[in-house]
Amino acid sequence: MSSSYGQNIRLTIFGQSHSPAIGVTLEGLPAGQQIDMEALQRFLKRRAPGQNAYSTPRKEADLPEFVSGVVGDVTCGAPLTAMIRNTNTRSGDYSNLVQTPRPGHADYTAQVKYHGAQDYAGGGHFSGRLTAPLCIAGGICKQLLEREGIQIISRIASIGGVKDQGELTASTAEKEFPVVDDACGEAMKNCIAEARADGDSVGGVIEVAVLGLPVGLGDPMFDGMENRIASIVFGIPAVKGLEFGSGFDVAAMRGSENNDCFTVKDGKVCTETNHAGGILGGITNGMPLTFRAAVKPTPSIGKPQQSVNLETMQVETLNIVGRHDPCIVPRAVPCMEAAAAIAVYDALLEEKKG
Amino acid sequence: MSSSYGQNIRLTIFGQSHSPAIGVTLEGLPAGQQIDMEALQRFLKRRAPGQNAYSTPRKEADLPEFVSGVVGDVTCGAPLTAMIRNTNTRSGDYSNLVQTPRPGHADYTAQVKYHGAQDYAGGGHFSGRLTAPLCIAGGICKQLLEREGIQIISRIASIGGVKDQGELTASTAEKEFPVVDDACGEAMKNCIAEARADGDSVGGVIEVAVLGLPVGLGDPMFDGMENRIASIVFGIPAVKGLEFGSGFDVAAMRGSENNDCFTVKDGKVCTETNHAGGILGGITNGMPLTFRAAVKPTPSIGKPQQSVNLETMQVETLNIVGRHDPCIVPRAVPCMEAAAAIAVYDALLEEKKG
Amino acid sequence: MSSSYGQNIRLTIFGQSHSPAIGVTLEGLPAGQQIDMEALQRFLKRRAPGQNAYSTPRKEADLPEFVSGVVGDVTCGAPLTAMIRNTNTRSGDYSNLVQTPRPGHADYTAQVKYHGAQDYAGGGHFSGRLTAPLCIAGGICKQLLEREGIQIISRIASIGGVKDQGELTASTAEKEFPVVDDACGEAMKNCIAEARADGDSVGGVIEVAVLGLPVGLGDPMFDGMENRIASIVFGIPAVKGLEFGSGFDVAAMRGSENNDCFTVKDGKVCTETNHAGGILGGITNGMPLTFRAAVKPTPSIGKPQQSVNLETMQVETLNIVGRHDPCIVPRAVPCMEAAAAIAVYDALLEEKKG
Amino acid sequence: MSSSYGQNIRLTIFGQSHSPAIGVTLEGLPAGQQIDMEALQRFLKRRAPGQNAYSTPRKEADLPEFVSGVVGDVTCGAPLTAMIRNTNTRSGDYSNLVQTPRPGHADYTAQVKYHGAQDYAGGGHFSGRLTAPLCIAGGICKQLLEREGIQIISRIASIGGVKDQGELTASTAEKEFPVVDDACGEAMKNCIAEARADGDSVGGVIEVAVLGLPVGLGDPMFDGMENRIASIVFGIPAVKGLEFGSGFDVAAMRGSENNDCFTVKDGKVCTETNHAGGILGGITNGMPLTFRAAVKPTPSIGKPQQSVNLETMQVETLNIVGRHDPCIVPRAVPCMEAAAAIAVYDALLEEKKG
Repeated sequence: MSSSYGQNIRLTIFGQSHSPAIGVTLEGLPAGQQIDMEALQRFLKRRAPGQNAYSTPRKEADLPEFVSGVVGDVTCGAPLTAMIRNTNTRSGDYSNLVQTPRPGHADYTAQVKYHGAQDYAGGGHFSGRLTAPLCIAGGICKQLLEREGIQIISRIASIGGVKDQGELTASTAEKEFPVVDDACGEAMKNCIAEARADGDSVGGVIEVAVLGLPVGLGDPMFDGMENRIASIVFGIPAVKGLEFGSGFDVAAMRGSENNDCFTVKDGKVCTETNHAGGILGGITNGMPLTFRAAVKPTPSIGKPQQSVNLETMQVETLNIVGRHDPCIVPRAVPCMEAAAAIAVYDALLEEKKG
Repeated sequence: MSSSYGQNIRLTIFGQSHSPAIGVTLEGLPAGQQIDMEALQRFLKRRAPGQNAYSTPRKEADLPEFVSGVVGDVTCGAPLTAMIRNTNTRSGDYSNLVQTPRPGHADYTAQVKYHGAQDYAGGGHFSGRLTAPLCIAGGICKQLLEREGIQIISRIASIGGVKDQGELTASTAEKEFPVVDDACGEAMKNCIAEARADGDSVGGVIEVAVLGLPVGLGDPMFDGMENRIASIVFGIPAVKGLEFGSGFDVAAMRGSENNDCFTVKDGKVCTETNHAGGILGGITNGMPLTFRAAVKPTPSIGKPQQSVNLETMQVETLNIVGRHDPCIVPRAVPCMEAAAAIAVYDALLEEKKG
Repeated sequence: MSSSYGQNIRLTIFGQSHSPAIGVTLEGLPAGQQIDMEALQRFLKRRAPGQNAYSTPRKEADLPEFVSGVVGDVTCGAPLTAMIRNTNTRSGDYSNLVQTPRPGHADYTAQVKYHGAQDYAGGGHFSGRLTAPLCIAGGICKQLLEREGIQIISRIASIGGVKDQGELTASTAEKEFPVVDDACGEAMKNCIAEARADGDSVGGVIEVAVLGLPVGLGDPMFDGMENRIASIVFGIPAVKGLEFGSGFDVAAMRGSENNDCFTVKDGKVCTETNHAGGILGGITNGMPLTFRAAVKPTPSIGKPQQSVNLETMQVETLNIVGRHDPCIVPRAVPCMEAAAAIAVYDALLEEKKG
Repeated sequence: MSSSYGQNIRLTIFGQSHSPAIGVTLEGLPAGQQIDMEALQRFLKRRAPGQNAYSTPRKEADLPEFVSGVVGDVTCGAPLTAMIRNTNTRSGDYSNLVQTPRPGHADYTAQVKYHGAQDYAGGGHFSGRLTAPLCIAGGICKQLLEREGIQIISRIASIGGVKDQGELTASTAEKEFPVVDDACGEAMKNCIAEARADGDSVGGVIEVAVLGLPVGLGDPMFDGMENRIASIVFGIPAVKGLEFGSGFDVAAMRGSENNDCFTVKDGKVCTETNHAGGILGGITNGMPLTFRAAVKPTPSIGKPQQSVNLETMQVETLNIVGRHDPCIVPRAVPCMEAAAAIAVYDALLEEKKG
């Protein structure tokens, strides 16, 4: 199967890029929680297309309709379903991709898996557009976490090899282009502009931190915080790598260097460093839970590319028309927060049982 | 909860480092499959302790007893449970760790999570020893995959910053110290020996490739191959990062570089390069599925470390006695194969429904 | 949580009686299956309200909108979501029930469980109206089963103590009032009419048979056919009992009487009798799978009833206004078929893995 | 798959009648709970064979070994696995049943499902012996429920058509032959003795009540208390029917009769009657949760029976040798309590999240 996540809350995402609507159902939300609809709307706007020079010009209102699960704006305990109508669809753009799949896309794998019955228009269910319902669900969970003193922040750590400098803080996360060092941010934007000018695209890395976590969230083995977060973050299209704390850098460290020494601050146990990214044995240790995800460059590019005509089995040159982001990293930032929020909220509910 | 994985096969791992036994139950195996017990034993031996200079001297036979699910050595369709008795336990080694947790271990987080009721001896359920039942389950799945023409190979990609050179092939995977370039292997072993001499430890990276996969395994969103593999691989203690194909390197690439062009070989669609690691949209594309996992240095080291006495809330110096691997990377190699085998076999069964 | 069912297909039902819409998401459907929309509409019409003298006069078109998962009327492999708008809502009818719960309804239990945040209008998520999306999902599964030679039929076995006579056959199931003996049917209708005249309601029993099943569906223990069917059938509001084959009658039988002797017909193994209802050890034996479900009388009645004012904690007399079925048994018949279809189709997909 | 149950605790049962051992793994138990091993042993003894005249003479110690999940007799948060060795196996008894399946047993369906690879000895995984691990898990849950003021009691409601008289109370449940009216109990025992003398067997009905439940356990739709209980109770071999409260009797009632009027006692809301069996809309209402399960007569009988030789496809007369209960109802009583305890405890943990 496919498009569900969670054990204590459960989200199910439905829709295709060009279907009548896309949406999400969220089961297991506590009743009586008011959803701040304006805050949710602001959160959704961070991933909406057409906002600025470095994203696709496809514009959509992306106002979710809540069809169930709330009375007014308060959760009622029943499954919450929110939906966004697809108003601005241009199916004609994709007609030639049925038989000549786009490199880097799911066109070919979907064609084989679904025996040609897949909805190919706009990438169908594999479209990045499906992160909109993810953000609805995640935006709600983020609000619920904030009520428990848990905050999720993030930044663009790099784009096209240009790295941000400095430490992620809450004030960074509020920026329109969330980097610590704005000069780095300008260099990243230039990198995107160059790629766009070349009919090309660039990737990047996004860093997320979850602050204010209690000690003890997460479970051993396959329900550890890393597992829980990984199994939702890899559901965001284009993610190809994920690391927690010092991540791949630990592979070159010695134990004496990587181990975070325990100490006491303000009467509480904490660690001097945070190579572990706030997770020991899959369980939160009270330090910030940090992870970084590698996002590949948008596969849809203007440049001609080599592909194969699946009918004739001849190699062909493919030209992709249509509107595409030269870099999806900025729009993927709230998606990472959404994914983290859902995973953490699910783990929080798990812990309440104990 | 904790210690189960899978949708079409389901494994549940039980046991603590010093409990009477550790084991695994595997549901959903097809009936009538002969398990090659000798091949399984050889596979388990690859992760067994006490084999050589760079692993812990704790020696255990690690012969699994099959208590259910087979008639002779043939699966019968009922849940298969295999168990390993813990014969060589030395609980006394760990008595001082109850109140002064080891940095880098789950001692502290388990203490808080389980309110002091956890089995602290030897790391309890968080011990690396629990990868033995994972390898039993994975070794069985590996055999079943081989019958469908799917092979899983792996190598040590780096240890302590020393990187292997060359391309992973099946012959590499069969080596006692699985690296392509044996000179690199010697350098890695020296690196381990130095760490051991210093009472320290080192980490590394393991690379895995799954060969012979059909096109179409994996599902969209949260059941993609990356998600499925991630949610089991992060269950292996000490894994802090995971990347597929070119992984974090894609973040610095352009789309025209990262996209794998389609071509035709031997009448079949394939790609010229494999930056995608054999996965597009979460679904296998017929190329080798490749991933790399970062393994942190063993947290148990001989050097004195700073910790906190949880009773007095005073900072203390901790000296860990007992037997520990200066580098668990070599023994983690078959664990990665086991994890991959279980995830891939689960996805394969999923696909058979369709 | 709540409103999801299934392992190989997964349905999630959302909506409340008076929310903007109700609907269902169905994951795991095979791609490329054409849905016969007219046949589905005919099936849905069997449970729609306002059709005749013995159901509520609330009339709704109940035309589902397919918002995802299909291209035209063919499944595309993505989650299928279908929705029905709630057009004919009269929230005012229910205003007095918030503080004085209706006997036999979920008003009181929902009030306590959701701390007063539940959507009380029209029964909210507990309304029988939520069986409409169940019937959408079940109607689709029924079509898919028919393509595999599996047919689901049903009848009203009794209403208000009046029992149907004779054996259930396919032709019975097609009747507008599905009983074998139409004279019994008339007696049942009279029974309903009398209850209505008294401002009261009556219950009944529905019998279902699944024909054409292969041997081998269902799994041991908690995934047997009885378990699978029970866990969905008890999701239909008002069901208070469920029995398979000879059901409760077996309790008074001897083994020699209840055991179905094996024999051979047309070269195939079958049984002389079918006390087992086609299930041995949780697994289909090729005989018709039969079950019967007890449906309680509609709890909403016109007669004054004793309840408690939850604010004053005083006993009060409650008068329920609004439109209600004097007997929901006829409308529950297709719901039982839908539930059976979903459970059986899920088990069929499970078996395809093996 | 098969042999797992639960969402918040999860039990997995393994073993076959004649495998080296049978057992159960229980995940999700809270840490720090002391298991009263003597009380557990007393509970297990209630279902053990060989206790009296009306059960099989196969005698087994049935002392569970706790191989994981406890430190001493206190839960430690890791999966708890308990095992019972199969010491008294006589595989020879069953050799002729491979090709000539026993009527009423899973021999034939297992043979087809598992293509002849099933463990046929003693019924394999389908044996009633697998209720021993169910009782281990249930016995533990029962103890945990008692600490929360929730008590589970039961009685034999009928055997072979002989019905008990009077109301189930806690004192009944403690009897060696748990009926209210001991004269009825004597008649039941006679009924069993007659069946045994005839080489035959009899079935019966078991009634269970759960006392002391809070209002609000259970969830709407497919996670209602009826669904949760049904999906475990039908996992007990031989159960063919299940009803809650007044069950099938409600089908002949009018709403005014079946609706339980609310009233106030000791300052708490309750109902005057309990036709609903303590469940409204799937959710507990604070009244005793009551259900009754129909248990078929033991299919293994001494009388010759007609079966089919699966090799020759000829009808044959089958004579079953071996030791069998003429009536399993008395031994099934604690199994019902165990099933109820697990289902209720799982629902209780669910509620703690909210």
